[in-house]
Amino acid sequence: MSETSAAYDALERRDPATRERAQLAALPAMVAHAQACAPALAAILRGVDAASITSRAALARLPVTRKSALLELQQASRSRADTAREPFGGFSAIGWSALVAAPRGARRVFQSPGPIYEPEGQAPDYWRIARALFAAGFRAGDLIHNSFSYHLTPGAFMMETGAHAIGCTVFAGGVGNTELQLQAMGDLQPQGYTGTPSFLKILLDKAAELGITMPWLRKALVSGEACPPSLRDWLRERGVEAYQCYATADVGLIAYETAAREGLVVDEGVIVEIVRPGTDDPVPEPAPGQAPEVGEVVVTSLNPDYPLIRFGTGDLSAVLPGPCPSGRTNTRIRGWMGRADQTAKVRGMFVHPGQVAEIVRRHAEIARARLVIAGEMANDRMTLKVELGGAEREGLAGRVAETIRDVTKLRGEVEICAGGSLPNDGKIIDDTRQLA
Amino acid sequence: MSETSAAYDALERRDPATRERAQLAALPAMVAHAQACAPALAAILRGVDAASITSRAALARLPVTRKSALLELQQASRSRADTAREPFGGFSAIGWSALVAAPRGARRVFQSPGPIYEPEGQAPDYWRIARALFAAGFRAGDLIHNSFSYHLTPGAFMMETGAHAIGCTVFAGGVGNTELQLQAMGDLQPQGYTGTPSFLKILLDKAAELGITMPWLRKALVSGEACPPSLRDWLRERGVEAYQCYATADVGLIAYETAAREGLVVDEGVIVEIVRPGTDDPVPEPAPGQAPEVGEVVVTSLNPDYPLIRFGTGDLSAVLPGPCPSGRTNTRIRGWMGRADQTAKVRGMFVHPGQVAEIVRRHAEIARARLVIAGEMANDRMTLKVELGGAEREGLAGRVAETIRDVTKLRGEVEICAGGSLPNDGKIIDDTRQLA
Repeated sequence: MSETSAAYDALERRDPATRERAQLAALPAMVAHAQACAPALAAILRGVDAASITSRAALARLPVTRKSALLELQQASRSRADTAREPFGGFSAIGWSALVAAPRGARRVFQSPGPIYEPEGQAPDYWRIARALFAAGFRAGDLIHNSFSYHLTPGAFMMETGAHAIGCTVFAGGVGNTELQLQAMGDLQPQGYTGTPSFLKILLDKAAELGITMPWLRKALVSGEACPPSLRDWLRERGVEAYQCYATADVGLIAYETAAREGLVVDEGVIVEIVRPGTDDPVPEPAPGQAPEVGEVVVTSLNPDYPLIRFGTGDLSAVLPGPCPSGRTNTRIRGWMGRADQTAKVRGMFVHPGQVAEIVRRHAEIARARLVIAGEMANDRMTLKVELGGAEREGLAGRVAETIRDVTKLRGEVEICAGGSLPNDGKIIDDTRQLA
Repeated sequence: MSETSAAYDALERRDPATRERAQLAALPAMVAHAQACAPALAAILRGVDAASITSRAALARLPVTRKSALLELQQASRSRADTAREPFGGFSAIGWSALVAAPRGARRVFQSPGPIYEPEGQAPDYWRIARALFAAGFRAGDLIHNSFSYHLTPGAFMMETGAHAIGCTVFAGGVGNTELQLQAMGDLQPQGYTGTPSFLKILLDKAAELGITMPWLRKALVSGEACPPSLRDWLRERGVEAYQCYATADVGLIAYETAAREGLVVDEGVIVEIVRPGTDDPVPEPAPGQAPEVGEVVVTSLNPDYPLIRFGTGDLSAVLPGPCPSGRTNTRIRGWMGRADQTAKVRGMFVHPGQVAEIVRRHAEIARARLVIAGEMANDRMTLKVELGGAEREGLAGRVAETIRDVTKLRGEVEICAGGSLPNDGKIIDDTRQLA
């Protein structure tokens, strides 16, 4: 077993049915806790019998809370003048003593663009990044050069708390100060790097320019941006094996790359669903021989401090069938495939995936749909391409066109396509206009 | 008892004799530990019988290690190619697994200007800043807005680890991003601020410019630069009571301000001496009615992870006689009074305080001396002003002038002054030249 294929803990390699049972068994208590301790979730889950949420089907009937809603509820709460005012909008079960609804202390609080605020609880590896670091080869006693920013946003602390859980020492490089960071890398000889892949490239380019080699630097856990295979190979040629992880400030680690280099394995602390963009519904099971559908990553976090139930990340991905060759038994996903919030502006009106979903909902014959917007700005054409579940019925195209007008207030054409012909890329709205 | 005069722990108010006994009793083990675990200190303390270091007089016979020596030894160690190479130059008892001499893991490592590297151990409040935060009024459940930089240097972590030890939540503001930081202050409503006093002024000026008031912000622990009474009053007028602390990346908290606002109380985790600049010798006991002499702050840290014995900070201060009205019983010092490393360049030659000390050492009649450099560059005059311990003996000035020439390779005049007439400002070399 190679260094990077060892297990961080026994959870990673448990029987998938055992995992599923354990996670589903935890759901009723999680939902009840959210209802009791997070007023915003209590409102969202009003009338839900927590005890009944014991299956993926039951979970899938709960509403998805999207990041935009989280932001709006936070802003609304912050503008209140009464004691219910609090910066997390009623989603966090922790805070500090001035927050009446959140008696337990947070360790830190962060500001992400929006601004949106996220709490960090007292758990040592709050965002569960240690598992991803371990899969990338990080071990106790390593020195890690951490080049995420420690200011305002949680990126650097996500890496640091994971590193400390493993038993690593951390150098807080932060962003910028390229020459000082490079000097520290030369002086301290870290085994690993955490940060964006592009900043690692900047550091290694600068080192080469100065004639410096750093043979001790062998591994990296990169995040915060895409790491294309070309960059991964470039880093490998310079002796650094870089692995990706997919994590957010809200729910922590969602999935991580392993030495198998086939997609990302889902973390043990979350339940991941892939839903149709614009809807709260999981994508259907793929037909035999077909690839699972691309959709929005929806995460239910089993973290009592910040109990997000069905949190819509806005990111697109898909399940990658089959087991991970590294021996990890959890579901794999294909990594980041774009954004699910594909709102477009057509002739002055916003069109969003939820409207496309509504059109589909009104016509039982439609199995899948894709709204293609073409032409130039101010002279654009909107075409709804649909795949049908069965045979075409007389006049369907005309009826669907009427529904388009009802739902979007815009005129659109309808094109009936062969089953399986629409691309599987998670795009509900495909805006092909060239915006000069 | 007001909020800020409560005690952080019982150590603060113990009988001074009990403290002195406890600290001196800890010294032999500290010295032995340093000899065993920190090769550089083993070399500096070669031949020292650790068991005999049981008094301040015995401690005062050990050599002072100045920051410049620490830097040189670190640089020498970093340039080695063998396994003894390590970035701390043999002063740290901790590190990471690649450092053979330091088996215990550091939590973080930092780079200060030089560069000089400092370890952080696993202790929760490694730099002992909680005591200073507590004296400044910080309490469990407070939200602290921390505006020190988290990158490279340890300032932000010093504050943060102290805040966490008390039970505070921390917002990692960092440096820069003034508007985003201000937005966070408005949204999160922190009770306290940590950072430089000048950045707090920038934030409050910006808030006033935008018409924002922040009545929740009531306290601050400031460091990293001087906080003159005018700025302290300016902050107070805006509702923020700011306290200072004196700490370094190497030894952590040295002394802290209390609600009494009379000097700074020495921390419980260090033994502080005031030594004559240029020497390793504590300043003499003051004559009755005279103020204690200003000198260099020398710190012996009782921290086994980084056991600095007689570390010369290069900072000037003096003991402030009498007890702190807040009830804390430890020695008080007068705060930062300048730098002890007063090296000057005269006619192309460096003159440093150690040379002045050597001149004094060669003439038993001299009690105190001050080398005054006046005139303009390239036309400067050097005058050694001396106070005598007894009556003047025939020809002393001429003999001292010869010694000046021997020691400094420069011609200097000698002026015999009345006892007590030399300023008590820690200046051994007073460079009064106007350097255009």
